[in-house]
Amino acid sequence: MKMVNWMNFDNVWNEKVKETEEILGAFLPAEEGWAKTVMQAMNYSVNAGGKRLRPMLMAETYRLFGGTGKVIEPFMAAIEMIHTYSLVHDDLPAMDNDEYRRGRKTTWVVYGDAMAVLAGDGLLNLAFETALKSFEISESDIKRNARALAILANKAGIYGMIGGQTADIEAENLGSKVTEEHLLYIHEHKTAALIQAAMMIGAVLAGADAQQTALVERAAYEIGVAFQIQDDILDVTSTLETLGKPVGSDEKNNKTTYVTLKGIEEASREQREMSNHAIEQLESLEEKGFRNEFLMELIRSLITRIK
Amino acid sequence: MKMVNWMNFDNVWNEKVKETEEILGAFLPAEEGWAKTVMQAMNYSVNAGGKRLRPMLMAETYRLFGGTGKVIEPFMAAIEMIHTYSLVHDDLPAMDNDEYRRGRKTTWVVYGDAMAVLAGDGLLNLAFETALKSFEISESDIKRNARALAILANKAGIYGMIGGQTADIEAENLGSKVTEEHLLYIHEHKTAALIQAAMMIGAVLAGADAQQTALVERAAYEIGVAFQIQDDILDVTSTLETLGKPVGSDEKNNKTTYVTLKGIEEASREQREMSNHAIEQLESLEEKGFRNEFLMELIRSLITRIK
Repeated sequence: MKMVNWMNFDNVWNEKVKETEEILGAFLPAEEGWAKTVMQAMNYSVNAGGKRLRPMLMAETYRLFGGTGKVIEPFMAAIEMIHTYSLVHDDLPAMDNDEYRRGRKTTWVVYGDAMAVLAGDGLLNLAFETALKSFEISESDIKRNARALAILANKAGIYGMIGGQTADIEAENLGSKVTEEHLLYIHEHKTAALIQAAMMIGAVLAGADAQQTALVERAAYEIGVAFQIQDDILDVTSTLETLGKPVGSDEKNNKTTYVTLKGIEEASREQREMSNHAIEQLESLEEKGFRNEFLMELIRSLITRIK
Repeated sequence: MKMVNWMNFDNVWNEKVKETEEILGAFLPAEEGWAKTVMQAMNYSVNAGGKRLRPMLMAETYRLFGGTGKVIEPFMAAIEMIHTYSLVHDDLPAMDNDEYRRGRKTTWVVYGDAMAVLAGDGLLNLAFETALKSFEISESDIKRNARALAILANKAGIYGMIGGQTADIEAENLGSKVTEEHLLYIHEHKTAALIQAAMMIGAVLAGADAQQTALVERAAYEIGVAFQIQDDILDVTSTLETLGKPVGSDEKNNKTTYVTLKGIEEASREQREMSNHAIEQLESLEEKGFRNEFLMELIRSLITRIK
């Protein structure tokens, strides 16, 4: 009975967060030398916590396709560094001017603007430096490593996440004039692109073929967009107590969201449709013997989460 | 006679700048779609001109070791993107707050702070995205490409250029209390690291062995530091007319330089010694049949330049 209790989803998840943070920690810089301050700022930013969602989705997709090696580890660290750098730069006074994130002072508040710019740059650069270590771990899979690196660079850059952030900044000036096409572009690129990268890299490194990788890319798109629509929904339906942050902020900021465009019912219906379709797609891989219960449960929890 | 005239160094250099800019242009983004603005800001930054020194040193070192292929081109574009992003972020109000560079408004002045942060991020990310295209050009040299990528990431990051920028920011608060060790760390990392990357990548991609690459790394260190000391010297000895920018700014800002630490004569002596040693080292490769007159002339011109 105790075993079963330990095996419940939240406990397994927490265990996996710890494992992921240990892997991540192994690739973070030692805080020493003349550039010590930027290293401290980088580590402060990465160690701010969070769900470690992207490296975890990567590792679980790797396992789904039968991957068992250590070649995934540098990429797990790399994608979390990229996610973190995007938050560090987003929080800057030049961008969103946020002083707190998850109840902690943001990087620029603690280390100053200049050091926060450099810490973000440092994390983005270190992400590639780290992912390149996969070549040392697995020389036989060198083409897979190169393919995984190309996916990471593409989904993180101007045709991926940075493109989404650009469109998001432009949307702020448009207010309620933002179209559905524009909003979907933002959700797809700002949020879904890194989730696609995470899951595709897991697939590619485990040896998934082009068709399977394309299936993962489509499913991850739906997961990412559904995840973001859920954010829009919770901002309307949740409470400060449950969410741990103020609700109604989108309306207050006159921000166009999936909910303002479609209404709460239609937004919820589409969100469920996307989620279910993504899970169906991934479960269709079971026919070929690819199965990972925890991954399915993780995805379900993300898109039906209440906070 | 006309032929000889055309063949003088400055004309050849100008031709090579043009060639380099064509290569670079082929890897810059088309300005379209929802993320158009960041692409415009990136292209504006890259097209601001400059000597294209790093890609040119890379291409010429590649030629020195007998390289003739197109695999060098994505790396030439990548290193110029990295140099450019570092200037875009350096100019930000959060950093140096510079409104003009080479007589043109800086990126943040034209596109705003937020877009300049994203344009810098976009260029750094695109540099890796671009360099990864080398794998498509030359699959047979996949290990060389991976090695070249690792050099790029290392010399551009916190153990290279970003480390140098961090130490430089810290030095600003120390004023005249900056030590020679601290200053040499800044010169080595902020300036020499990317010059090392440029020349080492040229060598590695052309098939230079580990010993030859190490020789290039040491020579490029001396070239980079001598280049930077020459900057410090010109700030004291030149005039506004010759230099095209105000002189005496280091003294005005109470900035520690190689000249304030050592005096003008000793600084000049060491600068010449480093330069000569670097050129001697590279010329020693002639014994093995590696010779590139233009590269030698280019290096001489950099470290004896009067503006």
